[in-house]
Amino acid sequence: MKVSEIGEFGLIDLLADMVYRARDKSREPWKNLIAGIGDDTAAWHGDASIQLATVDALIQDVHFSLDTTSWEEVGWKALAINLSDIAAMGGNPIYALVSLALPGQTEVEDVTILYRGMIQLAQQFEIAIVGGNISRSPQVAVHVTVLGNAARQGQLILTRSAAKPAEKVAVTGHLGAAAAGLDMLRKNLTFDSETTASLRKAFLQPCPRIAEGQLLVEQGVETAIDISDGLVADLTHVCKASGVSARIEVDRVPISPPVRANFPDKALELALAGGEDYELLFTGTPQKIDKVRKAASCPVTLIGEITAGKAGEITLVDSQGNPVDLPGTGWDHFAIK
Amino acid sequence: MKVSEIGEFGLIDLLADMVYRARDKSREPWKNLIAGIGDDTAAWHGDASIQLATVDALIQDVHFSLDTTSWEEVGWKALAINLSDIAAMGGNPIYALVSLALPGQTEVEDVTILYRGMIQLAQQFEIAIVGGNISRSPQVAVHVTVLGNAARQGQLILTRSAAKPAEKVAVTGHLGAAAAGLDMLRKNLTFDSETTASLRKAFLQPCPRIAEGQLLVEQGVETAIDISDGLVADLTHVCKASGVSARIEVDRVPISPPVRANFPDKALELALAGGEDYELLFTGTPQKIDKVRKAASCPVTLIGEITAGKAGEITLVDSQGNPVDLPGTGWDHFAIK
Repeated sequence: MKVSEIGEFGLIDLLADMVYRARDKSREPWKNLIAGIGDDTAAWHGDASIQLATVDALIQDVHFSLDTTSWEEVGWKALAINLSDIAAMGGNPIYALVSLALPGQTEVEDVTILYRGMIQLAQQFEIAIVGGNISRSPQVAVHVTVLGNAARQGQLILTRSAAKPAEKVAVTGHLGAAAAGLDMLRKNLTFDSETTASLRKAFLQPCPRIAEGQLLVEQGVETAIDISDGLVADLTHVCKASGVSARIEVDRVPISPPVRANFPDKALELALAGGEDYELLFTGTPQKIDKVRKAASCPVTLIGEITAGKAGEITLVDSQGNPVDLPGTGWDHFAIK
Repeated sequence: MKVSEIGEFGLIDLLADMVYRARDKSREPWKNLIAGIGDDTAAWHGDASIQLATVDALIQDVHFSLDTTSWEEVGWKALAINLSDIAAMGGNPIYALVSLALPGQTEVEDVTILYRGMIQLAQQFEIAIVGGNISRSPQVAVHVTVLGNAARQGQLILTRSAAKPAEKVAVTGHLGAAAAGLDMLRKNLTFDSETTASLRKAFLQPCPRIAEGQLLVEQGVETAIDISDGLVADLTHVCKASGVSARIEVDRVPISPPVRANFPDKALELALAGGEDYELLFTGTPQKIDKVRKAASCPVTLIGEITAGKAGEITLVDSQGNPVDLPGTGWDHFAIK
């Protein structure tokens, strides 16, 4: 059945039913909810901790192609990129609102599969989908708003603007696999099945670093960002917001192993400029970073340091401290921003 | 300059600057804000009252045409339709997040004019624009999320699901002018300048009934909805959610005077089925409705009553109680939903 046949209200009822069947009413955040999907707004009992809100969108043929992406992956990723923003503040995601734009010819089943992908991730992080909107549109767009809070009352948050000279720069996980996955899908590259699956997952089903973000706050880290635009571009955002510069030792950058193995000529470029890895980039004293590394369940790698130069300037150096230029258009593309 | 020339980050900086120049940092909600536009999420100090959240979208060539609508009007309306949802809960709007989708060829100046329209309305209701997102897209789309709360701690909210048989049904303001305005723009109809301006404003710059929604809560009203889909369609939503039916006396429906004067053949149809008036429809005892009428600064009209029939069924009657059929496709369109 087409979306145009079931109509806006029929589709809302169907999606609301999916969301409600997947919930656990006895637990938060559903327990605190007063009105979810189906009223003019969502409503819930508030609390006095710091509140967080973010919105991000996936647009067909801009951020994904339905030729290479499943509806389930679109749903997962549309929520995941927002959860990653909450992670970058060290917060706890709680509620999501979903504003869908769909052509009338969209199959209703495809929309339910999109929601299935979103609900899977929502269940994993105990997030309630509490509202949304459906509009007609020439192409599919998924705008998701996520609301959350600082995990504990009185707890601080991570910002982009607190980096200080002499602090070290560190990242969670490995970098470059998401951009390599996009490259693979666009160019129809073939690898062994394990590599194919891991690159595809890195690009289409990133796992937001919620626990790691909260760990950073607990260990006294003050500055973080999630890597969505690319390591260098996102470090530039931090440096501009903090009024500092930074130096990255490129040999230390934790390149994703399948990227290093399968993209030898541009592995470093993918890791530095590729983007969409949704790992956390943060700054702090070596002692704090060490404590984070010991407590984290993922790799944490020190890759450089904050310096007192021109605000927003990033220098790439080798292990001897000599400046490094990066070849490739990906790098140029970000460099001119 | 084109959006593609200034780039995503340049445009964000420009719009953030507009928002910040228009704020009053000494007052709420800016006073409570910890991080606004420019970090991974917005962040503010929470409170324990009931929290509200809603999202709605305006999409080019679906909800508006740039041939007949100014960028300023698009900005105003994209925020207004969300404020109206907060009004329908009896709440107080506080924060807005804006997810913009724009073709690269869009003029930067037009985007700033869109923001000017949104900021005008935001200032009127003391709302802080605290975040958002900008994506490339083949057509313009404005997805706005508004967050708010119950105006006073411990105060209840209005829902769609509390209507009870024997309660009366009432509406704020006049109906039909928004749909008449759309008709005028689509068919290029000409009227005297005052009529033209009022119909255009009704469709493109509706004024959300925030004060009236809060008044309803204060007077003990429990059930309300804003009229976006049309009087009959929205009363149907209330009746379905409440498990009741309703009867409307069509002679009592407060048709907008310029609509009555200029659309004699279909004035009633526009008022009953046209939609987008963003007035409030509510139910309550005659005593409560009377108190609301005396305290409200806009007309409040009793138009019918809630009955104990089939859930969601709406009957239209004349002043003698005889059933009335409504001619015209607008009515048929809504009847089959």
